[in-house]
Amino acid sequence: MNEPETMHKKINPARRHSYHRPKNISHSNKNIIGRTRHPLQAKRPPLRNEEKRGSSIPPIEKDIIRIIPFGGVEEVGKNMTAFEYGDDIIVVDAGIYFPGDETPGVDYVIPDTTYLEERKSKIRGLFITHAHLDHIGAIPYVQEKLGNPPIYARKLSAAFIQKRQSEFLHLPKLDMRIVEREEKIKVGSLTVSFFAVTHTIPEAMGLIIGTPHGNIIHSGDLKIDHKDGEPLSFEVEEFTKIGNENNLCLLTDSTNVDRPGFGFPEREVHENLRKIIKETKGRLIIGTFASLLERIIYIINTAEELGKKVVIDGRSMKVNIEIARELGLLKKGLKSIIPITEMENHPPENVIILATGAQGDAYAVLMRVANKQHKYIKINNHDTIILSSSIIPGNERGVQKLKDNLSRQGAKILHYAIADVHSSGHAYKDEAAWIIKMLNPKFFIPIHGYHYMLRVHKAIAESQGLSDKNIVIPDNGMIVEIDGQKQTISQLKKRAPAGIVMVDALGQGNVKDVVVRDRKALATDGMFVIVAVIDIKTGKVRKSPDIISRGFVYLKESQDLLNQTRLLVKKTTENAVGEMHPINFDYVKNSLRETIGKFLYQQTKKRPIILPVILEV
Amino acid sequence: MNEPETMHKKINPARRHSYHRPKNISHSNKNIIGRTRHPLQAKRPPLRNEEKRGSSIPPIEKDIIRIIPFGGVEEVGKNMTAFEYGDDIIVVDAGIYFPGDETPGVDYVIPDTTYLEERKSKIRGLFITHAHLDHIGAIPYVQEKLGNPPIYARKLSAAFIQKRQSEFLHLPKLDMRIVEREEKIKVGSLTVSFFAVTHTIPEAMGLIIGTPHGNIIHSGDLKIDHKDGEPLSFEVEEFTKIGNENNLCLLTDSTNVDRPGFGFPEREVHENLRKIIKETKGRLIIGTFASLLERIIYIINTAEELGKKVVIDGRSMKVNIEIARELGLLKKGLKSIIPITEMENHPPENVIILATGAQGDAYAVLMRVANKQHKYIKINNHDTIILSSSIIPGNERGVQKLKDNLSRQGAKILHYAIADVHSSGHAYKDEAAWIIKMLNPKFFIPIHGYHYMLRVHKAIAESQGLSDKNIVIPDNGMIVEIDGQKQTISQLKKRAPAGIVMVDALGQGNVKDVVVRDRKALATDGMFVIVAVIDIKTGKVRKSPDIISRGFVYLKESQDLLNQTRLLVKKTTENAVGEMHPINFDYVKNSLRETIGKFLYQQTKKRPIILPVILEV
Repeated sequence: MNEPETMHKKINPARRHSYHRPKNISHSNKNIIGRTRHPLQAKRPPLRNEEKRGSSIPPIEKDIIRIIPFGGVEEVGKNMTAFEYGDDIIVVDAGIYFPGDETPGVDYVIPDTTYLEERKSKIRGLFITHAHLDHIGAIPYVQEKLGNPPIYARKLSAAFIQKRQSEFLHLPKLDMRIVEREEKIKVGSLTVSFFAVTHTIPEAMGLIIGTPHGNIIHSGDLKIDHKDGEPLSFEVEEFTKIGNENNLCLLTDSTNVDRPGFGFPEREVHENLRKIIKETKGRLIIGTFASLLERIIYIINTAEELGKKVVIDGRSMKVNIEIARELGLLKKGLKSIIPITEMENHPPENVIILATGAQGDAYAVLMRVANKQHKYIKINNHDTIILSSSIIPGNERGVQKLKDNLSRQGAKILHYAIADVHSSGHAYKDEAAWIIKMLNPKFFIPIHGYHYMLRVHKAIAESQGLSDKNIVIPDNGMIVEIDGQKQTISQLKKRAPAGIVMVDALGQGNVKDVVVRDRKALATDGMFVIVAVIDIKTGKVRKSPDIISRGFVYLKESQDLLNQTRLLVKKTTENAVGEMHPINFDYVKNSLRETIGKFLYQQTKKRPIILPVILEV
Repeated sequence: MNEPETMHKKINPARRHSYHRPKNISHSNKNIIGRTRHPLQAKRPPLRNEEKRGSSIPPIEKDIIRIIPFGGVEEVGKNMTAFEYGDDIIVVDAGIYFPGDETPGVDYVIPDTTYLEERKSKIRGLFITHAHLDHIGAIPYVQEKLGNPPIYARKLSAAFIQKRQSEFLHLPKLDMRIVEREEKIKVGSLTVSFFAVTHTIPEAMGLIIGTPHGNIIHSGDLKIDHKDGEPLSFEVEEFTKIGNENNLCLLTDSTNVDRPGFGFPEREVHENLRKIIKETKGRLIIGTFASLLERIIYIINTAEELGKKVVIDGRSMKVNIEIARELGLLKKGLKSIIPITEMENHPPENVIILATGAQGDAYAVLMRVANKQHKYIKINNHDTIILSSSIIPGNERGVQKLKDNLSRQGAKILHYAIADVHSSGHAYKDEAAWIIKMLNPKFFIPIHGYHYMLRVHKAIAESQGLSDKNIVIPDNGMIVEIDGQKQTISQLKKRAPAGIVMVDALGQGNVKDVVVRDRKALATDGMFVIVAVIDIKTGKVRKSPDIISRGFVYLKESQDLLNQTRLLVKKTTENAVGEMHPINFDYVKNSLRETIGKFLYQQTKKRPIILPVILEV
């Protein structure tokens, strides 16, 4: 409860927003409710439901492999899955999710790790598939809670993790273990080896978790490189090799499996970008995600080859390119990069600007350019702008505004809906079918997607011959068990805690859902503070009650409403006070909340949060 | 300004959110700022900028045709365009726009009609192209302001307008004039005739406004019915006929012109739906927009033909079908409609449910079904659900939740991304080119779309031979003038007022943007009320100051922060009060706002709205 902390507190929360008069409160019970000056003494919150739930989960039995997704199976994002066998737990990924309007003022949602915290002595390592934030973003928030296990990651992922960690002060040093593509790591009674997958960032990996009962494959995010629907030979070789082993279970990416056919290959996006870079007459501005590092490297290398200069702008773009440079992933293109201040020294047709903000993000480079607030980049009608990304749901209006303002200044705009300048990093339906066919697992668990996508993925697995009883569609916190002896898959009735854990990027600690609920109420109907001073001798309200309101109605044009409300506040307060000594402040406030709430709703059809302040003098 | 109305007011608004201490306020100026008990006396708001702007627009000259879009050219929605010639003005459409997160708690945005209000004696009529809300939704809000001019509309549009009007009490009766397809109406010195266009609702019309200098064509929203990119003969005939006249200017729909080729024809959507209706084994639930009335009529008629029964559910769906029935647009299918209570009397494979809520709208039928809150419709794994609509930007997560919850209950889901069960009502690029070619206007004004879309539409017009100087891309409020003698098009420097006018569906009157700004601030960072009682004799704060906060941080876990804040409030208040007699409340409050604002930001990186209440006893 996020009760207002006023002088007189202890409000019945159930009655907070109801407008019918409490029946059983009369003057005679004033000593029962009483007055408490500081009711917020409960320093230690009561045990959460989830914790109780978590504690009652039976210990794992012999020959059982537990698979528990803590995130990523009821959303696209906050990916995290744990694998438990005997005394060992390994965790794969620790990502964040960017929430939308449903949680205003919240930056990220992270996985609920209660189950792991209760078993942290068993955790042998956190394995990272690739360096995107929906796979590594939660590390600074969860790593301590997990007891700081070693993190196993490829070099690039490790660099991204370290970079992010450095932005959080006072966190302990990470126990980082760089792994190579062909390495096989022994962790307790399990082994983990890696295989390269095609995604949109270098060094993206799938994991093969070796158990005495067979391999569990966690593919990470991936798509299949292909030509006209025929997977390229390197994909065929890799998947054939893995497919020949004893694959007990496959967990793989569902993000795009409801899209028919094969996705557009990144290679062809590259070819299209090359053609545009070569043929564009004026200056070229390319907006894309800083996380699409393969494409960014390709653009820089291509610019170098074609004798063009590249300006890098935007913090995340600069950081990511610097990491790629440090690790030697970007070599030949380096000479083409010039500082933005030298842009004017080159003819426009030789200049490419790589910029952030293709999503219409408020403070990113492209939006500043669109709003004519960028120090160096001014648009003219010889400029061409490529928005080389899809639009993340929720950003449509921001992107529309961006396109409007850029085109208003004369720029020509190319975007993915009208030209093939973007492709997704996730397998489409026919790619997903091919992956399942090649890896030929006994059991299948679709992950990385909303529930509906997992359902579609299940149907694809069935089309490849897997039977219904060998497939489990998980929820966050579901405990899936594979019995290695009986060769069966099932789920426990008990679930691991899987609440929504919200965090602010800059603030400390978690954001409680009651705070978010209040924000949403404030956002639509605003708030209404009533200040009434009661003369303790007469029981009357002194002067006219004060009203403070924001986000509700336009007060200057609502004088009648305010005057009526003041009269009603006075009357309601005095009626409620009656002959009470001492005054039961909770009762008075509840009366005000109900009466004024009802009145304002009748008058305006709005339900502002009503906060009465009662003082006695 | 939406100032808090406290006992002591008159706050310098410029300083409201700034945290640096005002330098020039000292004890000696207390009489200058003074205290005012009721500063909201300004009953009559000052003239808005726009009104001043509007008044200084020169009167229209001889042989000039003015074209002014008041909405629909910087957004998709709130369409309204005025045509002025001599002493006559005709207005086309009066639509609303559904705003997104940028304006929480606001239901609609309507066009700014100030220019028209100042010239209402010239208005000869409001002409309606078709019955969608982005064309008729603002009528209840603007009709009185325009002096209640006659409304010219086809029968169906008139029925929708009357239905909507009936939901607003106390509005005067509309002067409704039903027009026929072939009618030609004389309005002052202008004539208006109609032509049928293909859209998604019956009786959609384009308008031909006859002037002494040639025709102005306002196409309304439209697409072209075609087979494999060849317009059907009825389209060719209609457009050939109109194209043969003297077409001075064309205004037409830009909504989809950046999509390549021809759009998917509604006829083929119908064929696909027919196939699904025929072949689906279990019960079929079709969710679509109630506004796609042509498709709804088709579905009902097809059900009848195939011997199926149709259940209609959802208020807007029922209302629209009832209107279609009353007007005789739905005849043969009527027998197939059954009440929802009789659904169980028929085998599931014979039942089709037509429902609202394909956008994931919180209280519509499909969401209630998905949440297992629908009284009659319970999903089972023999059900098939078609989402026969596109997703309106901003609704993606709602639709995702809908699909998740419906598929979780076992339903098979078909949606427009995986099957051709929806098409848009707006012309794609090649359709737009064909329209311009056929109508062959001298001047071109793209309308109905965001600025970027209008730019794209301009390029299409240029590809059809129009020259740059014959095309004007308008903004809302831009006054375009065609000189009938000189045969030129230009725009006035002065613009008509074109502010954002926000209204609540249920509340009375407009929503001010300051209220919306406050709502947005409240939504992300919450609010923080400080109540300090000053002892007038000592100048000290009595007891510990009270704090009420919502939507900011979780107070129960922020005891230290609150205690520190209380101390700081006490200190700041007492320092500010100093030896003042009487106390300068504005100065004290400003000090609190700055000091506490700064402190809270340092501690939490949040900027709640800070509202000090200072009382003296």
